[in-house]
Amino acid sequence: MKRAEIITIGDEILIGQIVDTNSAWMASQLNAINVKVEQITSISDTPDHLVSALNDARKRADVVLITGGLGPTKDDRTKKVLCEYFDSKMVLHQATLDHIVDFFRMRNMPVIGQLNHDQAMVPDNCQVLFNPQGTAPGMWFEQNETIFVSMPGVPYEMKDIMSLHVLPRLAKINGAGAIYHKTVLTIGIPESKLAEKLDEWEDALPENIHLAYLPNPGQIRLRFSAFGQSEADLAEQVNQQIEKLMLIIPDAIFGYNDDTLAGVVGKLLLLKQKTLATAESCTGGFVAHSITSEPGSSRWFKGSIVAYANEAKVNILGVDQQLIDDYGAVSEQVVCQMALGARNALDAEYAVATSGIAGPDGGTDEKPVGMVWVAVATPEGVFAQKFSFTRNRERNIIRASQMALDMLRLELLKK
Amino acid sequence: MKRAEIITIGDEILIGQIVDTNSAWMASQLNAINVKVEQITSISDTPDHLVSALNDARKRADVVLITGGLGPTKDDRTKKVLCEYFDSKMVLHQATLDHIVDFFRMRNMPVIGQLNHDQAMVPDNCQVLFNPQGTAPGMWFEQNETIFVSMPGVPYEMKDIMSLHVLPRLAKINGAGAIYHKTVLTIGIPESKLAEKLDEWEDALPENIHLAYLPNPGQIRLRFSAFGQSEADLAEQVNQQIEKLMLIIPDAIFGYNDDTLAGVVGKLLLLKQKTLATAESCTGGFVAHSITSEPGSSRWFKGSIVAYANEAKVNILGVDQQLIDDYGAVSEQVVCQMALGARNALDAEYAVATSGIAGPDGGTDEKPVGMVWVAVATPEGVFAQKFSFTRNRERNIIRASQMALDMLRLELLKK
Repeated sequence: MKRAEIITIGDEILIGQIVDTNSAWMASQLNAINVKVEQITSISDTPDHLVSALNDARKRADVVLITGGLGPTKDDRTKKVLCEYFDSKMVLHQATLDHIVDFFRMRNMPVIGQLNHDQAMVPDNCQVLFNPQGTAPGMWFEQNETIFVSMPGVPYEMKDIMSLHVLPRLAKINGAGAIYHKTVLTIGIPESKLAEKLDEWEDALPENIHLAYLPNPGQIRLRFSAFGQSEADLAEQVNQQIEKLMLIIPDAIFGYNDDTLAGVVGKLLLLKQKTLATAESCTGGFVAHSITSEPGSSRWFKGSIVAYANEAKVNILGVDQQLIDDYGAVSEQVVCQMALGARNALDAEYAVATSGIAGPDGGTDEKPVGMVWVAVATPEGVFAQKFSFTRNRERNIIRASQMALDMLRLELLKK
Repeated sequence: MKRAEIITIGDEILIGQIVDTNSAWMASQLNAINVKVEQITSISDTPDHLVSALNDARKRADVVLITGGLGPTKDDRTKKVLCEYFDSKMVLHQATLDHIVDFFRMRNMPVIGQLNHDQAMVPDNCQVLFNPQGTAPGMWFEQNETIFVSMPGVPYEMKDIMSLHVLPRLAKINGAGAIYHKTVLTIGIPESKLAEKLDEWEDALPENIHLAYLPNPGQIRLRFSAFGQSEADLAEQVNQQIEKLMLIIPDAIFGYNDDTLAGVVGKLLLLKQKTLATAESCTGGFVAHSITSEPGSSRWFKGSIVAYANEAKVNILGVDQQLIDDYGAVSEQVVCQMALGARNALDAEYAVATSGIAGPDGGTDEKPVGMVWVAVATPEGVFAQKFSFTRNRERNIIRASQMALDMLRLELLKK
């Protein structure tokens, strides 16, 4: 199996201004074609550091993928360093220049400038990788059995170059040996509790199956990695273990791999030919956003009333003002009326509603920051549950949204 | 100035199952106390790789920060490797054990298990760093002038340990030399266009000021890094350059550093004592989520109608069914009525509305995927603008949401 390393270039990662999402995507794609990523390294945009990182990486890896430092602006020095590193000289690549001219013409943008023209210059010993969504091409070098690929750091441009050129070539080059990964997605059980529950089962796992706990807010993903010769055999072996797992934590498992909670809920609703509406206070639209991030969600999602102001709860959702006065907006009584009101106003069979103190301010002794009520309205009625989350606004919004979808999921599974 | 390296441990990063947000946060915090991050390295959870990464990092850096591999579950081996690496032996840390017992008692969770008990064992030559939000403590080692700190990988636990212990100690240790960073946030001008506009100004920047272009979907951030002796002098020098920049791109600059578009819009509304409502179709709640992610947004945000189904546009927003029949839901006519309807239904002075084809499916020749109408309703009337984005659903949702907030921002600045 080929071993790869990823090098990302740019001070913006080292000073923490951007998160390195590129590497995560590249790693997942390489993994899928049995190329093992040994290390991911972020370095600054200085020639010396790039040269030493290239020298280190080629000692360990067969393939070195480099991103960043190829944009049209002046902070990009990568191409010149690579040109020198591979003992080449810069030449004009006509097809790239033609593409750049077309690129601007199609967007009705003014005549090409010098900065974009420079992007059509490439080292003469690289293979140019066409970049359909941008102006800086990818570059493929081979030297002493090692492959080096340089790509722009703009995520969608890099992804296109990887998908169109790099991954198909590497898949062809890559030889024997199989890895199989499968991830089981769980919700509602904290990590240490889950580990205790799974202790005995985990101890009995075959030696060629590794298990990792990957926590997300409110979720724990269990990643199986199986090593062997045949992917089909490995898949069967892992699935047998998952069957045992399902007997231990039947309710907590909501999906696999790239499944999302909203996607799973959507499938259940489509199966029943029912629709959903939401009424959101503390989650402020995040439940609706989680749902509408799913392509095709318009088939089962009617909409959401983000009733941030109390008057919206009364006027649009039909919540009784007296209930707000008596119990407060964050209460079982109000959240249940919100769910019923959303179902009614948006003409759906099911609805979920949230009302809570997201924080960081606004809590009281009786209703502290992190306290959230979630309600689910069904064709038969309505019920609610209270949660106590954290002092962190962002996490409270995410977790409350997840719990709303999970309560609905469990309800939809019942009958 | 001290130099640091960050090592993150865990296969989950190398197979691309999680994005390394920890390193970005740590880097930004280190940067703020003048500690320069030279490299960020992600490695697998194997003893050999950790030892070699530690050996490499100490050659370049004064401080090595390690995250990951300290959870209660079985895939964590880090602590044992560190214990061996620093020639120590494991001892029980009573204060940590007491904390773990309290931690579970306060959460009404059952009696502590062996897995959590093991978390109170630490190498005898480290200083234990208290972890208020979790059960695995941080560990501070010093060996031959190099500082090594190991922390759990759970983001909020790591952040607490960094903020409470690591950053204050490092700030004290760190000596002379000043860096000053400031980031100017721009929206609405593509990178290569912006670079051409700024060309002359950029060429005239003083030598000690570096500029980097950091693209986000729909936004370009311009990061100034200035190097010298006095932070106050550097700040003044950078601000003088920003004043010149504002003359070149006055409309495009919406904020600085950690400002958000929603936060900037909120400040403008508070200044005018006006409120906002939104009506969302293709953005599906993301405008509302961007707004309600801002603490205190309830002072200026009334709520949102996510009118995904056309019937919700008619019934709740009062859009004329005839207009939908004549022009389609994705049209100037409908999006304007949506904005007016939201302003009315939610009793706000301003409203924004979105209607478009987010994709990946659902486009036609006349209305392709990526086409989005955005409307802004003001106390005086309503206006709309059409955008052509990409084929990517996620990016279309983000960019349409940003354009809605930016159109409102420019309108609020007018008078």
